[in-house]
Amino acid sequence: MESLAKTSVSETGAPSGSAKGRQTRQAIIDCALQMAGRIGLEGLSIGVLADRMDMSKSGVFAHFGSREDLQIAVIRSYHDQFEQEVFYRAIAQPRGMPRLAAMVQRWLQRVSVEMETGCIYISSAVEFDDRPGPVREALVAMIQTWHDAVRRAIAQAIECGHLKADTDPQQLMFQIHGYILALHHDARLLRLPNSLALACRSLDALLRAQATPAGLALLTPCQAHASQAAQGDVAH
Amino acid sequence: MESLAKTSVSETGAPSGSAKGRQTRQAIIDCALQMAGRIGLEGLSIGVLADRMDMSKSGVFAHFGSREDLQIAVIRSYHDQFEQEVFYRAIAQPRGMPRLAAMVQRWLQRVSVEMETGCIYISSAVEFDDRPGPVREALVAMIQTWHDAVRRAIAQAIECGHLKADTDPQQLMFQIHGYILALHHDARLLRLPNSLALACRSLDALLRAQATPAGLALLTPCQAHASQAAQGDVAH
Repeated sequence: MESLAKTSVSETGAPSGSAKGRQTRQAIIDCALQMAGRIGLEGLSIGVLADRMDMSKSGVFAHFGSREDLQIAVIRSYHDQFEQEVFYRAIAQPRGMPRLAAMVQRWLQRVSVEMETGCIYISSAVEFDDRPGPVREALVAMIQTWHDAVRRAIAQAIECGHLKADTDPQQLMFQIHGYILALHHDARLLRLPNSLALACRSLDALLRAQATPAGLALLTPCQAHASQAAQGDVAH
Repeated sequence: MESLAKTSVSETGAPSGSAKGRQTRQAIIDCALQMAGRIGLEGLSIGVLADRMDMSKSGVFAHFGSREDLQIAVIRSYHDQFEQEVFYRAIAQPRGMPRLAAMVQRWLQRVSVEMETGCIYISSAVEFDDRPGPVREALVAMIQTWHDAVRRAIAQAIECGHLKADTDPQQLMFQIHGYILALHHDARLLRLPNSLALACRSLDALLRAQATPAGLALLTPCQAHASQAAQGDVAH
């Protein structure tokens, strides 16, 4: 099975060798992931985490060499979830328009269920765009990996004759990503009740404009999201 | 002259009545604005500011009732600059496509000169989307004010017959904003050297797709930006 290339992020955590150790480590990461969605990766503190987990600070530290290692473990865990929910399901679809449309729709879905928690990729992008170091590098590597996967799907859709031959994969990726970012912004900051419908229609229009007749026939509009948004399920 | 509606943000700062007091207050805000672009509004501390300004903490505090008031003053100052550089210059253009295109191009230009410093609107959006309170309210009010101005310009372009009658101002605004956000992301986090060219082409294509023949004749493509980006002036 095809896979999102794993980025070379060093695994850490001394006493995580045992099954129990690995379980505790994962529980800490899960808790940190939940917190990071709300307060950002930079807001994570070993102290607050220890408190939440009912552990000592040194107990938490024992599983991660440093706060940076914890932050990287959180990004990696987020990446794994994203891969499961978006990438693997999309590549189960046939190459070309079906796979590309599935990627776009699952990405949209992922961001829309994250309306309450916030997307770690998007919030960390702003947190770390000006902070060089291993956390930024890990974040960039994982985001690049996903963007590369989408660009690959676009290139395949061109090869399959489902997107027009003059489609620029980098340009189309930039545009898709823009609508995802605008959705996150409008739903989370502005609380616009119809932001999901706007994103859905924008993405549909984008793919339609670049599709060949063969591609158009394979394109199912994301109606489900639009009707959800119309019912005001998204932004409260 | 038309104006971006001022948002009702309370002015504070006890000893700022005198000319000297106002000058000091503005100098603190300028310094804070510079810092906030890099470290975020939440990263601002009265202590570090006092240090930078060679003032006592209480001296800085005397100009702002609280850290929140300082943060709001910084957002307002950013808003005033944005208004001067983007809004006022754009509305000097005739109504319809010339004004709308000027808004879009000046917005793009503003974000592209902010590649090094970061856009306060965009970084604060992520910082405050989950933190209710007066800072978030001030931020939302100012962003909404600008978005309303763009939507108004789109509606006028429809009335002038420069954009197709079926253009949805909210949808087009969402799409323009998406490309601005993607530019900020790709140039600052991913350091993609051609992100400005991608944004430029995407915005051009968007306006072209919605323009009537009369509107098309009035639309000047933003070549300058594209060639700048090609020379690698943007992302380092």
